[in-house]
Amino acid sequence: MRQAGRSLPEYRARRGDGSILEVIARPDLAAELTLQPVRRYGVDAAILFSDIVVPVAAIGFGVEVVPGQGPVVAEPFRRSGDLKRLRPLEPDLDVAYVAETVRLVVGETNVPVIGFAGAPFTLASYLVEGAPSRDHVRTKSLMRTDPVTWMALLDALADLSVASLRAQVAAGASAVQLFDSWVGTLSPDDYRQLVLPASRRIFSELEDLGVPRLHFGVATGELLSLMAEAGAEVVGVDWRVPLDAARHRVGPGHAVQGNLDPVTCLAPWRVVAAETRKVLAQAGGRPGHVFNLGHGVLPQTEPDTLKRVVELVHEEGTAQ
Amino acid sequence: MRQAGRSLPEYRARRGDGSILEVIARPDLAAELTLQPVRRYGVDAAILFSDIVVPVAAIGFGVEVVPGQGPVVAEPFRRSGDLKRLRPLEPDLDVAYVAETVRLVVGETNVPVIGFAGAPFTLASYLVEGAPSRDHVRTKSLMRTDPVTWMALLDALADLSVASLRAQVAAGASAVQLFDSWVGTLSPDDYRQLVLPASRRIFSELEDLGVPRLHFGVATGELLSLMAEAGAEVVGVDWRVPLDAARHRVGPGHAVQGNLDPVTCLAPWRVVAAETRKVLAQAGGRPGHVFNLGHGVLPQTEPDTLKRVVELVHEEGTAQ
Repeated sequence: MRQAGRSLPEYRARRGDGSILEVIARPDLAAELTLQPVRRYGVDAAILFSDIVVPVAAIGFGVEVVPGQGPVVAEPFRRSGDLKRLRPLEPDLDVAYVAETVRLVVGETNVPVIGFAGAPFTLASYLVEGAPSRDHVRTKSLMRTDPVTWMALLDALADLSVASLRAQVAAGASAVQLFDSWVGTLSPDDYRQLVLPASRRIFSELEDLGVPRLHFGVATGELLSLMAEAGAEVVGVDWRVPLDAARHRVGPGHAVQGNLDPVTCLAPWRVVAAETRKVLAQAGGRPGHVFNLGHGVLPQTEPDTLKRVVELVHEEGTAQ
Repeated sequence: MRQAGRSLPEYRARRGDGSILEVIARPDLAAELTLQPVRRYGVDAAILFSDIVVPVAAIGFGVEVVPGQGPVVAEPFRRSGDLKRLRPLEPDLDVAYVAETVRLVVGETNVPVIGFAGAPFTLASYLVEGAPSRDHVRTKSLMRTDPVTWMALLDALADLSVASLRAQVAAGASAVQLFDSWVGTLSPDDYRQLVLPASRRIFSELEDLGVPRLHFGVATGELLSLMAEAGAEVVGVDWRVPLDAARHRVGPGHAVQGNLDPVTCLAPWRVVAAETRKVLAQAGGRPGHVFNLGHGVLPQTEPDTLKRVVELVHEEGTAQ
């Protein structure tokens, strides 16, 4: 469960007031925050406490993560000349603390640790817009008016993500997830032409590692088959698409991950239980389903609710 | 094209600084703002200059539309006791200015005038959240924890929309559109159980008027067949769903409307032309397609671009 820590009192007790990038740069703290939800909820995997902008911030592009707002870029990417601001990532020098966090977490838990990175489209959208955006006006404009610069941007960002993910696996991560959170704003044609090649290259360049690869975005109903084509073993699905439909779209060679609406987890338990069972029913009780929420955990979620969701999935998932 | 006026210099010259609800309450001005894009762009229909919160504001629920933010409710809907704050709409007394605007517009143009109203889910989301929301946490919580109150709320809002739309048709509107802008945040199951009955009743209670009925929401790819089931002749589609897929989902008895990405209209003309042609190609050159943008016009759009889009659609649409 992504961002599950935010719901925990022990998270708020340890997190401190620093920016998330400052927290991530402290392996002892980042490892503790990674482990808290694992201990509390009994989930079957840990997802690293990190942020998709870590590599691009680490190479000095000038990205801050503003609390309550998200990634903000002092000098957004606007033209081909900005490509030179994207140098390759040297994981040992630039983000040694991420590998150290992975090592600490792996040493402390028996569950698999999932490393992650941002997908090129979503990272590009932050760099081009300069801040979180609803319409992605500048991103789509660059993409459509200067596809050469756009593809070069995506390639540079793909290289960062590959380097970052390989370093996380080298440090002990057992799986990798690529987050293309906002790519659901594109049509399938745009995705196929202007995003898929870069995302596909990432998965291709991770193949030799032999670890499961996951891929997720929000509101990607129309893109699921193309996201499967990009090469991940597991395609994440938000709550809008019933899992039986999602399975059909990703095809028999891929598993699906999801998709309880995180907002559901704020309801009384009888509602949460019914919706959790519905997700399991739509997954059909067959292999190839990784239960998860359809998006990140909301900070106001009661920890006890998430604990009961995990218990219910373990019971019913086994019973099926 | 919805909200096409916002892109026009003549709009900015006439609009004034009043809140949109104040402008709507002035039939001479609202009629002029309705007609400006018709004159400038040569579109085939006029859509009334109005707002989906007009009826609920007119019965005194306490709704303001804050510039740059959207509808804000001083005392949001939180419990069944709030139902009594939703009295029936008496169009002649509460919103006589809307009918007057329709009459003025009809007297000034030969194109059909489209009246509109908000769909119960989207209106409810504003009343329950109190302001525009990304996650619709309170809305979904009410819906799932107290479905009886929720359905009563939707029924009251459906009554408002029916009364408003019937009054607009009585004043001369030739078609009606129901906007369920944010319903795409729901899963098909939630929509079917907790939204469809109220929306279906609206279309049913408009059937005797004999005017075309349109229905639209954003990110509704998974809901299109259910939205068609609600009863409109025409189902609007955003840019995420290719029109050939959309046609398949709404089924042979329904037309589709859409779906050029409004962001595309900020690109150079060669890009806009190519994307416009792609929409026409995906519609397949067959009857049952109403060309439109996939969402409202962005204020920063060049008027000349929209004019050329309309011309291109008229040329190519006829040629097919």
